[in-house]
Amino acid sequence: MLKLSKNSDISTFRVLDLLQQVNQRKAAGQDIISLAPGQPADGAPQAALDYGADLMRHGFMGYTEAIGMPQLRARISQWYRDYYDVDVPASRIVITIGASGAFLFTFMSMFDAGDKIALAAPGYPAYRNIMKSCNLVPVEIPTGPQTNYQPTISHLEELEEVPDGLLIASPSNPAGTLIPPEELAAICAWCQERGVRLIADELYHGVTFGEKADTVTRYTADAVAVNSFSKYFAMTGWRLGWMVVPGPAVERVKCLAESLFVAPPTLAQHVAYKTFDHTDILDGYVARYKTNLDILKEELPKAGIHRLSDTRGAFYLYADISNLTADTEVWARALLDGTGVAVTPGTDFDPVRGHQTIRISFAGSTAEVQEACRRIQAFMKKV
Amino acid sequence: MLKLSKNSDISTFRVLDLLQQVNQRKAAGQDIISLAPGQPADGAPQAALDYGADLMRHGFMGYTEAIGMPQLRARISQWYRDYYDVDVPASRIVITIGASGAFLFTFMSMFDAGDKIALAAPGYPAYRNIMKSCNLVPVEIPTGPQTNYQPTISHLEELEEVPDGLLIASPSNPAGTLIPPEELAAICAWCQERGVRLIADELYHGVTFGEKADTVTRYTADAVAVNSFSKYFAMTGWRLGWMVVPGPAVERVKCLAESLFVAPPTLAQHVAYKTFDHTDILDGYVARYKTNLDILKEELPKAGIHRLSDTRGAFYLYADISNLTADTEVWARALLDGTGVAVTPGTDFDPVRGHQTIRISFAGSTAEVQEACRRIQAFMKKV
Repeated sequence: MLKLSKNSDISTFRVLDLLQQVNQRKAAGQDIISLAPGQPADGAPQAALDYGADLMRHGFMGYTEAIGMPQLRARISQWYRDYYDVDVPASRIVITIGASGAFLFTFMSMFDAGDKIALAAPGYPAYRNIMKSCNLVPVEIPTGPQTNYQPTISHLEELEEVPDGLLIASPSNPAGTLIPPEELAAICAWCQERGVRLIADELYHGVTFGEKADTVTRYTADAVAVNSFSKYFAMTGWRLGWMVVPGPAVERVKCLAESLFVAPPTLAQHVAYKTFDHTDILDGYVARYKTNLDILKEELPKAGIHRLSDTRGAFYLYADISNLTADTEVWARALLDGTGVAVTPGTDFDPVRGHQTIRISFAGSTAEVQEACRRIQAFMKKV
Repeated sequence: MLKLSKNSDISTFRVLDLLQQVNQRKAAGQDIISLAPGQPADGAPQAALDYGADLMRHGFMGYTEAIGMPQLRARISQWYRDYYDVDVPASRIVITIGASGAFLFTFMSMFDAGDKIALAAPGYPAYRNIMKSCNLVPVEIPTGPQTNYQPTISHLEELEEVPDGLLIASPSNPAGTLIPPEELAAICAWCQERGVRLIADELYHGVTFGEKADTVTRYTADAVAVNSFSKYFAMTGWRLGWMVVPGPAVERVKCLAESLFVAPPTLAQHVAYKTFDHTDILDGYVARYKTNLDILKEELPKAGIHRLSDTRGAFYLYADISNLTADTEVWARALLDGTGVAVTPGTDFDPVRGHQTIRISFAGSTAEVQEACRRIQAFMKKV
């Protein structure tokens, strides 16, 4: 009998199982609209892809430096100046295999087995799983619409003990809500005073519908900021992200990067470098997300879905539909069977209270969002 | 004062520092020949790259399934039938981010903090580091030319306690030596009888100069076999590998893959799929490595470097040069300064005894290998 790790409570994501079902149904010719995956409908700007294709015509793609190509790291440093008016030196920027690689480096380089990291529920399910895989203990802070599904200083003060780390995400996945700049500054100070290592998920920066999401790098050099080329930059399948590393941790992260992955993918780095020249196209994608959001906010309440998160960024609405169902997993399945519309039950993001909620992704086309609303409205009239 | 992980003994690789020095010297116009990196001089077959470039002209690259595209997994299953005459179902094949990702999945899914994994010294330095990052304990088995730098049943019997796991590598990095089929079968049986989880590094399979390296999948379904598209398939910068997973561990590895990385890089998977159609080109690369090896075996002894590993695969010679120097780090630096030839000191692969050894990579061009030999001979005449 083969032995496995005892640490076996890492579960699959419902959204990914759903994705597989959706793909199977599509392949079987069913008319499916998926509001499930957190993936932009468009890819990287074609000019950046064409640049990458040209490089491939010239053959060889060797390893880059373990922490990424110097010119890409410098370009990101420039981005912090241009986009946020913050000075983050390229020496603190590390290119990673998706944002996932950045979380792994952070947990492995800055924490020890048994350390506790606080984070909001609902939240991106992989956080808990990566922490557990690294023998760390996630401490979930239940949040709700009262605080925009974001942790506040009050939440932190109410924790039984000061955690070793705190992970924040603004915009939030699944709620699309922001931590306001003054609260972000206060959280940074709270962590710094107590030696709590702060990790900021800034994956959806750039995908905001009014004020920009603020960055922790403005307030502290001791926090880790994680970002990705998968969201604003629309490069999902390329698996590329970056992290801003506190100065004293850079050498360790470099050693980890060498041992764990040798280097990030080379062509992806070249393509990513070029996407910075085509932010007009990326901003066009964001404008579409905003149109989609406006449609959903208008149409969903007509189907009785009116307890919506105050989405200001990312491409997600988080909806409390406990007025419609006691179990959103059952409801989501019935919706998919009855209408071909896929949404994600909240249990992915909040195992305790997620049976009351769903996440709706509006990263797809506007026509799809319109048609999905029509079908959901018809579905709710029938049940 | 920012806290970091206490687990800080993960060091950089000398070979990577060397690589950086080599690049700096090349950039400064120096005439450098690097026999250091384990990277094929040529990339993937151009036809596979052209296929990838064509895909990029069509834009969008989304996520694939977390464990990889079904057609690529099926193609690899076919490869086991064609190349080894072994039946490995596609359901047990998982596509990973380089071989590195496969080791991470293995350590995280099949071991618990504190578990001990035996492995040969000298060996690939990242093994030790990935294990430590996962809170596992590497137990090094000192090996030498008597056993071709490979662990044997005798070595295993002499261990103070039965380890939780055993990691073997055939062909070996840094020694290029093979575990003979009968010894491999015996090791598989030894592990199975004792419940020792076996992990086989099969990264250099395909790069052999006579008999093929044998695969653990022939002898047991309980072992993990790890392979890569970076070596035989010459796709280093693409960061793609695969693992054969024991049936009972597949679901866990899938969950880990979802949480840790979402999916392997999409375009890399398409290109990898196409490389299987161009093994004639890949076999041409292997023929060149063999030519290079023959030159080194002929020429190095003329420089007093004659205690060479019995290299039958990979693109490495491991040489004991304790007759020439007491410290190969000093010697390698002097060689680089004096001749522009870079080799890797053995301390990367064996911290205890590696000051007596060097690793010579012959993945480069034949002209470079010839010129390097000439320079090493001239250098040894002078000192």
